Amino acid sequence: MHNVIFDTDPGVDDALALLYLHKHPQVNLLAVTTVFGNAAVESTTHNALFLKQAWGLDAPVARGAAGPLQPDAQPEAWPVHIHGDNGLGNHPVPAQLDVAADPRSAHQLIIDLVRAQPGQVTLVAVGRMTNLALALREAPDIASLVRGVVIMGGAFHVNGNITPAAEANIWGDAEAADIVFTASWPVIAIGLDVTTQVEMDRHGLDALAHAGGADADLVRALSQDYVDFYLQAGHKGMVVHDCCACIALTRPELFEFEHASVRVATDGVARGMTIPKPAGMAFGPSVWDGQAMQSIAIGVDASAVLADIEKTLSL
Amino acid sequence: MHNVIFDTDPGVDDALALLYLHKHPQVNLLAVTTVFGNAAVESTTHNALFLKQAWGLDAPVARGAAGPLQPDAQPEAWPVHIHGDNGLGNHPVPAQLDVAADPRSAHQLIIDLVRAQPGQVTLVAVGRMTNLALALREAPDIASLVRGVVIMGGAFHVNGNITPAAEANIWGDAEAADIVFTASWPVIAIGLDVTTQVEMDRHGLDALAHAGGADADLVRALSQDYVDFYLQAGHKGMVVHDCCACIALTRPELFEFEHASVRVATDGVARGMTIPKPAGMAFGPSVWDGQAMQSIAIGVDASAVLADIEKTLSL
Repeated sequence: MHNVIFDTDPGVDDALALLYLHKHPQVNLLAVTTVFGNAAVESTTHNALFLKQAWGLDAPVARGAAGPLQPDAQPEAWPVHIHGDNGLGNHPVPAQLDVAADPRSAHQLIIDLVRAQPGQVTLVAVGRMTNLALALREAPDIASLVRGVVIMGGAFHVNGNITPAAEANIWGDAEAADIVFTASWPVIAIGLDVTTQVEMDRHGLDALAHAGGADADLVRALSQDYVDFYLQAGHKGMVVHDCCACIALTRPELFEFEHASVRVATDGVARGMTIPKPAGMAFGPSVWDGQAMQSIAIGVDASAVLADIEKTLSL
Repeated sequence: MHNVIFDTDPGVDDALALLYLHKHPQVNLLAVTTVFGNAAVESTTHNALFLKQAWGLDAPVARGAAGPLQPDAQPEAWPVHIHGDNGLGNHPVPAQLDVAADPRSAHQLIIDLVRAQPGQVTLVAVGRMTNLALALREAPDIASLVRGVVIMGGAFHVNGNITPAAEANIWGDAEAADIVFTASWPVIAIGLDVTTQVEMDRHGLDALAHAGGADADLVRALSQDYVDFYLQAGHKGMVVHDCCACIALTRPELFEFEHASVRVATDGVARGMTIPKPAGMAFGPSVWDGQAMQSIAIGVDASAVLADIEKTLSL
């Protein structure tokens, strides 16, 4: 059983990932923590609460960071052309909900839950890494208390998607990402190297809705504009970035990994670039030395991942 | 016929590249310009003059930059473990020579020669890009007057060799390299993606000396410690980085290229990283936009390159 805190910025593909975690028989969803990214944190928190209500999640939702660690980082324009004006594909989300956010901040809830179950909690983080970095900064002991960390983020041997160098989750808080990669906890990084291969077309979404009933039908409904964006960008369907991170937890054998220490460029044109130094690479002294060796996905069985999503949502 | 200015920091593999250019029937060597890098510019200039004398080159040798454009860049330690204390593999080089450097600076000589033969001169640069950047800064017109630019530098889809992010020629003057890549002249970049595949073992060096007589025997003699360095680093022989750039000029069909605009990271952990944005990649606005599309080598027929070196030196 995986006890999971899901750190997220819903976000269309975040919604699918959340439903996957909710439905998966080997996942015990402890909490949902929100962060800015696909939209402002007010929107991503409201969207998470909407999904909690729609799907009847027990897990609390705690609101997290509204912006990056570095207060003078270049401000972001929310990706409304990808995730809609409301962050949920312009799907109508009621302004009033019957559920409310946990009073704690996201990073405080992470600290509390990790300390409460030493060695038992996995962080699955699919937005900016700000909440994780804040938790580490305030409670460095959690690095040795988590069971593991799985992130959706980075572009290791491929171009980025927000600049040619950088993937959006890392670029959006490069300082936080460098803290997460260099902390002495085991990170599994699911980046664009693999996520861009996992494309779900409208036929797949229809099959998902058919197999998964009303819960999955909501995913289909809010994903329509997102599918259009990816089709126009030349993909065969919507790229299910965030769900890949969840499946790297439940079905790691569907991925191929390399082991490397990772530093994140924080300055200049390379800002947000994830630069691996592979294990065993002989080298002169560098700032990669002595950093934790992490697992970076470099290959994926995309059709098996898509099949696992459909199977899990039909449970 | 290729009219070539060879910008170089001899440098063991620079010596082989220089002899290749000198011997090649389709190359007219107009000048040798020197730069810091494999050793201090005093040493690389002295070494270039020594090779001019040893091989009877007509081309003038002009001394270039002693350090990078950015005066407060991290100072370099000369790579004495690779190129020897004197920059020429610790091969004995007499202190007194019968030839002297041209009175002009390297970048002035580049400007003069390019302007004298519009559309006829190719720059082959295998050290730090400082001289080329200084020439561009003083005479921007040369960008449209050269026939082309071939450089040895960069690590585009592989790790670097001086940091995990950066190849040494680019790291050593990242600002200059960014100027060279973004100038509106055609650059062919031969980086570690291909050069590290072109390995000459002692058997190959012996064959070279046998085929090429006294001139090639000098290359063999001064390359011995350099071979040892690469064997100890796990290679099958010495990596002939710089000669690959010369062969990209004379035998481009031995390489596979991709087309991309390139920016060089100048700050932080990524300093010296060469980041390509491939042609045709759809993207939001970025600092790659509007920059010249350059040719980056991503594949090489290594055995054909080695055979071409042996054939050319035997002429």
